[in-house]
Amino acid sequence: MPPQWDESAVTEDDLIAALFAPIAGEGALGLRDDAALIAPTPGREIVVTLDTVVAGIHFFADDPPGAIARKALRVNLSDLAAKGALPRGFLLSLSLPKDFWAGAGAQGWLETFARTLGEDARRYGCPLLGGDTVATPGPLTLSITALGEVAAGRMVKRTGVKPGDALYVTGTIGDGALGLKARMGETPRLTGADEDFLVGRYLTPEPRNALARAMADFASGGMDVSDGLVGDLSKMLRVSGVAARVDLRAVPLSPSARALIAHGPEWFERAMTGGDDYELLASLPPGRAAAFEAAAAEANVAVTRVGEALAGAGAPTFIGLDGAPATFKVGSYGHF
Amino acid sequence: MPPQWDESAVTEDDLIAALFAPIAGEGALGLRDDAALIAPTPGREIVVTLDTVVAGIHFFADDPPGAIARKALRVNLSDLAAKGALPRGFLLSLSLPKDFWAGAGAQGWLETFARTLGEDARRYGCPLLGGDTVATPGPLTLSITALGEVAAGRMVKRTGVKPGDALYVTGTIGDGALGLKARMGETPRLTGADEDFLVGRYLTPEPRNALARAMADFASGGMDVSDGLVGDLSKMLRVSGVAARVDLRAVPLSPSARALIAHGPEWFERAMTGGDDYELLASLPPGRAAAFEAAAAEANVAVTRVGEALAGAGAPTFIGLDGAPATFKVGSYGHF
Repeated sequence: MPPQWDESAVTEDDLIAALFAPIAGEGALGLRDDAALIAPTPGREIVVTLDTVVAGIHFFADDPPGAIARKALRVNLSDLAAKGALPRGFLLSLSLPKDFWAGAGAQGWLETFARTLGEDARRYGCPLLGGDTVATPGPLTLSITALGEVAAGRMVKRTGVKPGDALYVTGTIGDGALGLKARMGETPRLTGADEDFLVGRYLTPEPRNALARAMADFASGGMDVSDGLVGDLSKMLRVSGVAARVDLRAVPLSPSARALIAHGPEWFERAMTGGDDYELLASLPPGRAAAFEAAAAEANVAVTRVGEALAGAGAPTFIGLDGAPATFKVGSYGHF
Repeated sequence: MPPQWDESAVTEDDLIAALFAPIAGEGALGLRDDAALIAPTPGREIVVTLDTVVAGIHFFADDPPGAIARKALRVNLSDLAAKGALPRGFLLSLSLPKDFWAGAGAQGWLETFARTLGEDARRYGCPLLGGDTVATPGPLTLSITALGEVAAGRMVKRTGVKPGDALYVTGTIGDGALGLKARMGETPRLTGADEDFLVGRYLTPEPRNALARAMADFASGGMDVSDGLVGDLSKMLRVSGVAARVDLRAVPLSPSARALIAHGPEWFERAMTGGDDYELLASLPPGRAAAFEAAAAEANVAVTRVGEALAGAGAPTFIGLDGAPATFKVGSYGHF
């Protein structure tokens, strides 16, 4: 890489050669072609997912470039994990604001962005395969398409929940939503450690790709939690045509989330409905529960049983902190 | 679909159900899941490509919605065709401006966009598989990821040109670049028919997917022409490590392009360097030329031999209209 680019004349080819080719995988053909190539493993199917994030909508334009890179990739990795798929690679659409190059540190920003993206790609075994870099009069926008593989017929579907299935969540719920409020300075006073933890969970989700194999082996239905546990679980149950009883008292909370929730029930509601969790929901027959839990322990991913699916098409019953059925106004996200 | 949406409360799920689910393919799982599923054909590999287009950069915001839909899909289909791949499906990232819903006719715009996209998807056998719809404070932005399949080991690469290969182009070159100038009112006076033809070629490229099988069967190297024949051909030869002699007098021109080029050599230069062709470049051993031409005729795609690749790593020699070697200032696209 040149020590300092002539920023008045940086081309897409320059960016590719300096920043993206070093983090590209084998099927990327050095990022010198029109397309990438994936040789599917015999007996496996390709799972493909796409998520777009826009500065000012899905992240803050002044978030650290490494955090932006990680989150854009990880929200897609989370979708692959929920489907039981192992990553094969990803494509990146990077729309850079027209005034990007006028800002101080444009080169450093991009170097950190690409280096961190490459570190995450290695960490999750999901190399860069290709993409497109364009200029936009709008905000920084990243769209990532991630491709994975799963044994034929084993992709875990949202529609697969069966009556009687046990319902599980991974990790802890609500940290991301509470972290967003902390990031915006809209929470009661927290310790520095709690604030750092929650904001960190908002900025940098931990996708549960280590659980993908157990999902494919044991889950009947699954999805990742991105728009809030209550809303996403309701959606999964609805498209599966089942009802459920979910005990929110069983939903795992981090100590930092507990500290904030102690300030009032509105924080619990936000934790259950707010989104940005990137944890997994799984349903499975109770007879598979022990094997699933053992596989999760082996993968070092915490899983917690929070309810069971029931015959019938009614809305799920959520048991609140007071032990009575709770209803939630599931957050509206404006138009989308 | 409701006869008139409540535009103050349209959700992504509404858009999916009303507009996108009807044009989705089998692997899309009704667009109700986190991901799409592709069962690869045994013995074939997956080819994946991504192109992003931004209003005000790659198209005009007031272009007809159907034209925007078609071009966004077709520039990706063109990449698959160049690689010899048959389409399997695509994912759409649609970023709608925040004020989109405030404009008159938002619903009609989206209906036409989605319906036309669906028509093109059927026409080219490339169904919608999934995607993401987001709001943006910026301009309308579309990013499409297209997936195709090619016999294992047969993907046509940019790097595959061999010394001695014959060099071919499809269709006619320059119409798109001249059409863009006509669209901007920056050409000498043309007949209405010529202007309509050139602007049409700019707005709605005709990807050469019918030639994909012949590309995979016969081509050593290939790419599609999107950034101008001279620049793209130079790039393909450079990454292949070969030189070439290309006779631009042999490059096929449409009658409408000829009418404009009659106004001066600057129009010829623009035709050769301007981009937006979405025709294919192919290289193949001369011994395969007759079979390739026969397959192209069978596919009803015009192909024209324009030069040959030569041993050596020097820049290609382009013979201009006067029979002498010509040099071109290959267009700069700002930062990208």
